[in-house]
Amino acid sequence: MNRSLLNSEVSRFITFEGIDGSGKSTQAKLLADYLSSKGIRVFFTREPGGGSLGEAIRADILDRRDIDIEPYAELCLFCADRAQHVREIILPKLRDGYTVICDRYYDSTLAYQGSGREVDPGLVHRMAMASSLGVEPDITFFLSVPVEQALLRLKSREKEKNKMDEEPFEFHSRVNEGYRQLIEKGTPRIKVIEASGSLEEIQMEIRRFFE
Amino acid sequence: MNRSLLNSEVSRFITFEGIDGSGKSTQAKLLADYLSSKGIRVFFTREPGGGSLGEAIRADILDRRDIDIEPYAELCLFCADRAQHVREIILPKLRDGYTVICDRYYDSTLAYQGSGREVDPGLVHRMAMASSLGVEPDITFFLSVPVEQALLRLKSREKEKNKMDEEPFEFHSRVNEGYRQLIEKGTPRIKVIEASGSLEEIQMEIRRFFE
Repeated sequence: MNRSLLNSEVSRFITFEGIDGSGKSTQAKLLADYLSSKGIRVFFTREPGGGSLGEAIRADILDRRDIDIEPYAELCLFCADRAQHVREIILPKLRDGYTVICDRYYDSTLAYQGSGREVDPGLVHRMAMASSLGVEPDITFFLSVPVEQALLRLKSREKEKNKMDEEPFEFHSRVNEGYRQLIEKGTPRIKVIEASGSLEEIQMEIRRFFE
Repeated sequence: MNRSLLNSEVSRFITFEGIDGSGKSTQAKLLADYLSSKGIRVFFTREPGGGSLGEAIRADILDRRDIDIEPYAELCLFCADRAQHVREIILPKLRDGYTVICDRYYDSTLAYQGSGREVDPGLVHRMAMASSLGVEPDITFFLSVPVEQALLRLKSREKEKNKMDEEPFEFHSRVNEGYRQLIEKGTPRIKVIEASGSLEEIQMEIRRFFE
């Protein structure tokens, strides 16, 4: 077992990334349960919507179908949500010694607003970094699935659909390409998980990093 | 009379700036009435809160006393509001030939979030510029009053107070200094209006720019 992880005195910040329908939320929760079962104090959270601003941003703004949001405004809202989330929740939990697992973090901003919405990549990068208040993930799991497969999965869960999920194939494809570019740049904290298989197989692949 | 302004074919974008209690909102509305009385099609708006995001941002987030907003998150929210306001309201009105008068615009972001909240000035500048979607004011009136006088005025209007108004003297003083730096940089569109006198005197000084 990884010493630093199983030592409750040392906190860890773990993020999950991937296009919608990649199964990352499910896998993030499964990992949280697994680490908890090993006696680690785990705090699970997600973006957007984790902090006190988040619920307002998600409900009143991002999920409203009647507003056609300007891409730069959308970028700002996600960054506002993250900064508040880090300040109110992520940072205090890390300081309290929790292992924090977050479903999406700043890589999502780079992929969705930078590549998906095609906002100026330099500005997106700077804003995304600022939104973290300097809190960087120790490890990031990128769940890799073909865009076609992810979209098929999305179709089967009508209820939980959000605005992003309704975007066309080309959008999700650009987002996927954005993630690929991040990985190709050689960001060592990002671990690519092949996520086309069964829930159990994927979870086993993730757990290998904690053995 | 200024040809370009009194010719309804040519639209103008006029912004008002100043610390809270400088009287800019009153003067902006008086100018709107004056120009309307001269037959000019005028559209009056304000920040934050002009667009469809604005009301949600103002009511649910910025005016909520129970949230201690991270300065960077506040910066993001004002920029989100502006980008949406420009897209939905300011740009369409200018295109329709209106003279648009806006109570606060991106100079407020530079002064309040850059100088007042002391967020990284380079980042604030870049984000504020991006939030305008390239729509720059033709003329900006900066209403200049001593900070002490502005705060006394604020005290007399308990009802309309917002979160910013409740900040200490030092905050308003830094904001004022931020505006001064902008003016000293020599931004020709910014006209400094001495605003310690009576409503009528101040309005007359503003109208001189349209004679």
